[in-house]
Amino acid sequence: MKVLITGGAGFLGRRLAHKLVARGSLKGTDGRDQAIDEIVLLDVVPAESLADARIRMIVGDIADASLLRRAIDRGVGSVFHLAAIVSGEAEADFDLGMRVNVDACRSLLEACRAAGHQPRVVFTSSVAVYGSDLPATVLDSSALNPQSSYGTQKAIGELLINDYSRKGFIDGRVLRLPTIGVRPGKPNRAASSFASGIVREPLNGEQSTCPIAPETRVWLLSPRKAIEGLILGHELPAQALGSSRIVNLPGVCVTAYEMVAALERVAGAEAAKRVRWERDEVTNRIVASWPGAWDTRRAEALGFSGDADFDSIIRAYIEDELSSAFAGRA
Amino acid sequence: MKVLITGGAGFLGRRLAHKLVARGSLKGTDGRDQAIDEIVLLDVVPAESLADARIRMIVGDIADASLLRRAIDRGVGSVFHLAAIVSGEAEADFDLGMRVNVDACRSLLEACRAAGHQPRVVFTSSVAVYGSDLPATVLDSSALNPQSSYGTQKAIGELLINDYSRKGFIDGRVLRLPTIGVRPGKPNRAASSFASGIVREPLNGEQSTCPIAPETRVWLLSPRKAIEGLILGHELPAQALGSSRIVNLPGVCVTAYEMVAALERVAGAEAAKRVRWERDEVTNRIVASWPGAWDTRRAEALGFSGDADFDSIIRAYIEDELSSAFAGRA
Repeated sequence: MKVLITGGAGFLGRRLAHKLVARGSLKGTDGRDQAIDEIVLLDVVPAESLADARIRMIVGDIADASLLRRAIDRGVGSVFHLAAIVSGEAEADFDLGMRVNVDACRSLLEACRAAGHQPRVVFTSSVAVYGSDLPATVLDSSALNPQSSYGTQKAIGELLINDYSRKGFIDGRVLRLPTIGVRPGKPNRAASSFASGIVREPLNGEQSTCPIAPETRVWLLSPRKAIEGLILGHELPAQALGSSRIVNLPGVCVTAYEMVAALERVAGAEAAKRVRWERDEVTNRIVASWPGAWDTRRAEALGFSGDADFDSIIRAYIEDELSSAFAGRA
Repeated sequence: MKVLITGGAGFLGRRLAHKLVARGSLKGTDGRDQAIDEIVLLDVVPAESLADARIRMIVGDIADASLLRRAIDRGVGSVFHLAAIVSGEAEADFDLGMRVNVDACRSLLEACRAAGHQPRVVFTSSVAVYGSDLPATVLDSSALNPQSSYGTQKAIGELLINDYSRKGFIDGRVLRLPTIGVRPGKPNRAASSFASGIVREPLNGEQSTCPIAPETRVWLLSPRKAIEGLILGHELPAQALGSSRIVNLPGVCVTAYEMVAALERVAGAEAAKRVRWERDEVTNRIVASWPGAWDTRRAEALGFSGDADFDSIIRAYIEDELSSAFAGRA
């Protein structure tokens, strides 16, 4: 069978593709293991280093409904819908966010429905669907009240995935991800970009700015655990999910201050000193509106797991992404 | 100023129009009382009995974005967006529900945004946004988990109204209505249609079928109180609403059994005997997924009120809609 990964040229998309190649199979529409013949990465930019002949790239606009209809035929057993306009950018450009985060999501679901074989669709949602007057630990039964356009758009995507699944058009799963960090590469326009930057840049000997208050809590998951979660979320039988396809994945709760303290423990005081505290009110407001922790009992009962602590997250980043010199220190 | 009422030919739309004519003014974009010069009813069918020269009808498709752009100019201070495909029909025709309940809602919000003066928009939502494993009394902090396409579509509308308001594109208000009954007229394709039918038809000497289990709880509001609520919801200052534009309006919680018992008390045993109990599983599943009651403290603090009990709702219906013969009995 074929697997489609939207946003496939992104960091998580590429990493997922390589993991799936190594794995070799996924459960198909019928819930039975099927060999992966092809992985299609759909993105607006080409992916770097397609290391395997089974990985194919389609460069195009995710909001182009006809492209989606062509890409999603009956051979596509599984779709990982990762493409999104990130939080900071969706806040700055409302129409772009609606076009990609809502319209393209809906076009994708319609293409899956038209294919007629109920493909599995794994949709990544976010802490940003919550907001405003949250309890210290958010429960599965807590109301959403997004305080950003990104969160609003993701919440709409969640509702659609649930209803398309209930109607039998797709077999959908929504994984609400904590902030994913530490990511390799460059800063992006996510309000949460700092959560990678304040570790990644100092480890590279560069300065980094933390735009949020030291006491602001962040709910974090490493890329490793996120990829594990995406695959486990795909493999779960539909009946395990009950009346809601949404699972809040486990994370670790740390303040920005604690993140820098962990950086100091793992990489030394010099690294920690490269973090400059310079509050950006827009970013701080968005990040502070997200839950610092949520109840993970449902996820754990389904087999998901998070990281042990932020120190482990930094060490995993060093192992996965940095030179052997750093790996030695970790 | 002008007031636009979508779904204006419907029962609530017409009643609201007449109430606004009698009232003569509403708060405008600036929050100050403004005389109502014109009330525009937009609907796919013409409204009966336009009793006042200030009421004008536009017959057209609410999903026609260009029609909405023409209808919503800078003279429109207020929009009451009541047009919707009802629950039973949206469940039977998914695409029609999406087109009217989601796409037309968004086109309307875009037309308001394009007008540029932040018109007040009152959007009616529903008990149907909730569903599955609800507490006995739903709180404002309870998660939505709609178990119907109608509920999903209304929940998407709510998210849009909140975000368009947060962004300053509109000054929106979402009133989550209990099931509105007793409505005059004929049964419609709402799953809740029975809640009017099992009173209205027996009062007219006709048989009526109750498709839900006698013990199923329903959360009800009379048309009188609903119209009061729409106007009060419009008049509230934005700052009274805080970070969520959504208000759950008060209702009365009764079982189907208790509704018929109230009918017997108000209109006699003969009337009550005209109700036939004949379960329809699809309808019962939808109605039973809705909350039987929700916490109304926020609404009450804002000045909203519900009906005293279901007996009063029946009496109000008799007063408002039926001949003096019935009014005498009540």
